[in-house]
Amino acid sequence: MRIHHMWDAYPELQTDISRVLQFIESHIRVRDDTIEAVIRELMLPGGKLLRPAYTLLCSKIGPRQTEENAVALAAAIETLHMATLVHDDVIDESVTRRGMTTLHERFGNKFAIYAGDYLFCLCFSILSRYASSLIQNGFDFLSMEKILDGELAQLHARFQSQVSVKHYLARISGKTARLFAIGCYFGALSSEASEKEARAAWNMGHYIGMAFQIKDDILDYEGEQARVGKPVLHDIRQGIYTLPFIYAMKEEEERLRPYLERREQLSDEHAEEVKELIIKAGGIEHAQSVADRYTSKALAQLALMPDGDYKQTLKKLTLQLLRRDT
Amino acid sequence: MRIHHMWDAYPELQTDISRVLQFIESHIRVRDDTIEAVIRELMLPGGKLLRPAYTLLCSKIGPRQTEENAVALAAAIETLHMATLVHDDVIDESVTRRGMTTLHERFGNKFAIYAGDYLFCLCFSILSRYASSLIQNGFDFLSMEKILDGELAQLHARFQSQVSVKHYLARISGKTARLFAIGCYFGALSSEASEKEARAAWNMGHYIGMAFQIKDDILDYEGEQARVGKPVLHDIRQGIYTLPFIYAMKEEEERLRPYLERREQLSDEHAEEVKELIIKAGGIEHAQSVADRYTSKALAQLALMPDGDYKQTLKKLTLQLLRRDT
Repeated sequence: MRIHHMWDAYPELQTDISRVLQFIESHIRVRDDTIEAVIRELMLPGGKLLRPAYTLLCSKIGPRQTEENAVALAAAIETLHMATLVHDDVIDESVTRRGMTTLHERFGNKFAIYAGDYLFCLCFSILSRYASSLIQNGFDFLSMEKILDGELAQLHARFQSQVSVKHYLARISGKTARLFAIGCYFGALSSEASEKEARAAWNMGHYIGMAFQIKDDILDYEGEQARVGKPVLHDIRQGIYTLPFIYAMKEEEERLRPYLERREQLSDEHAEEVKELIIKAGGIEHAQSVADRYTSKALAQLALMPDGDYKQTLKKLTLQLLRRDT
Repeated sequence: MRIHHMWDAYPELQTDISRVLQFIESHIRVRDDTIEAVIRELMLPGGKLLRPAYTLLCSKIGPRQTEENAVALAAAIETLHMATLVHDDVIDESVTRRGMTTLHERFGNKFAIYAGDYLFCLCFSILSRYASSLIQNGFDFLSMEKILDGELAQLHARFQSQVSVKHYLARISGKTARLFAIGCYFGALSSEASEKEARAAWNMGHYIGMAFQIKDDILDYEGEQARVGKPVLHDIRQGIYTLPFIYAMKEEEERLRPYLERREQLSDEHAEEVKELIIKAGGIEHAQSVADRYTSKALAQLALMPDGDYKQTLKKLTLQLLRRDT
């Protein structure tokens, strides 16, 4: 199965990442062939598979590496991620994802809701089948419902322009960072890493997820539509206020407020003006410096781990993802 | 916490059923208090809690009964059921459930989608925390994603009036019977019942679920709006064809077909005519006899189990739920 071209630079990971996709595909089994084909198609366009990649790499931390378990664990993590994406698309009313027409556009919201539920349950089936011994040791870390805590908070805070930095960080900690952390932690445990090493892996995953989400939010201000794949200032129009905006509001609240009142009706011209205001107020620069701090923290956790080839790969991948100019 | 009055007739079960509700309530924890209150409110109006009741009763089959585990297991089963209900309400565009305005009517579909996801994940957190040793023994039975198989099939088959009895039975086997079966099976295992007894519990749960769903589908033809809580022939208008209809189509296809083409626009007057046709063709009688057969099969499985007070209660509850005149 074809995986994202970014992995051409990581030949040591390519095979295992392909196996993760194959694993997921072979576990999607529903009675109706048409439905099965539709759910499988979700996998084909291929996201970057970053979460499974980190899980696989962290499964090299400990002394006892069982590739089978690592692939299954990585597959469970990606399946959960995919479940949330399918539902996010319903909620955001997205028309495309990864360049493909989204499931709910082709088959209706109703189908997408159940397909997402199917993937949630499949994730837990995979975990209970292949990783139940890990679950027993780490159930407190596995509280996956905390991922939804961030999503619920984000919905509830829509159009609340007074959102604090603290609230934003708590939100992305649930929404994005937790799944990276879970993948790294259980990856490490699967190789019988020590509890101390596994916690370092959790922390590393958490920091990577935080930096990754902040960078993603910055792209909403910087990218052109073609690159980001959604309209400029999509988040602001949806009432989702992220770090660059939150910082800019501290400086330019009076000038920004009238734009916010237009909500979804914000014109492209006005969106450009908002973007200018946020950039001039230093919002992006400030957000980028926070992301940089999380990246440094991630690398500091990585430094605590035992030596090995995997460590170089983790460093290379993290820098590629999170360095300023990417 | 107030539970459904039907349990007044089962004093031996009342306390444990209350504890299940309390258990779920105490495990719902999200950062935002408003959101937490809304998700908890889902529990208050109180469904019948039939699935947890069967789980609790089956946790008396084996020699080693640990009430703590049985309550946690029953809570996980009800949490999963509730997750599917919240999403069903979004999909059916239901305005009320159990006499209360549904979550998505009050807070929007978007909120209801994530709240359902939260409950899915919470179910698995509870299982991984309190029942991980059971999971290791029974993962093949725990494939919860098969529950969604039935829901997906139902959506995909909407307005396909040629649906077969076999297809209908397969659909309700996933959609309803499986969760009863899972609850009974793991309930039995939690008390260290033998594998043979646990399988009998699985089969009993499966048959009860089948009969229960067929009875529920018959209510769509028999009940008045006030009793069933939804408009007469709601299912047919939604293109969901259940057993009474499927049997009647064998006799009266030519006369029924013109009505079907009206879909959601079927008038109340025409709905009455459809109902008459289905009753005259013997659709309800036929469906009821299938339900009766499943009830007998359930009781035959029950007879295989070791003696005890729980066995009388299981029989009484099953007959109360499934006998013809209820």
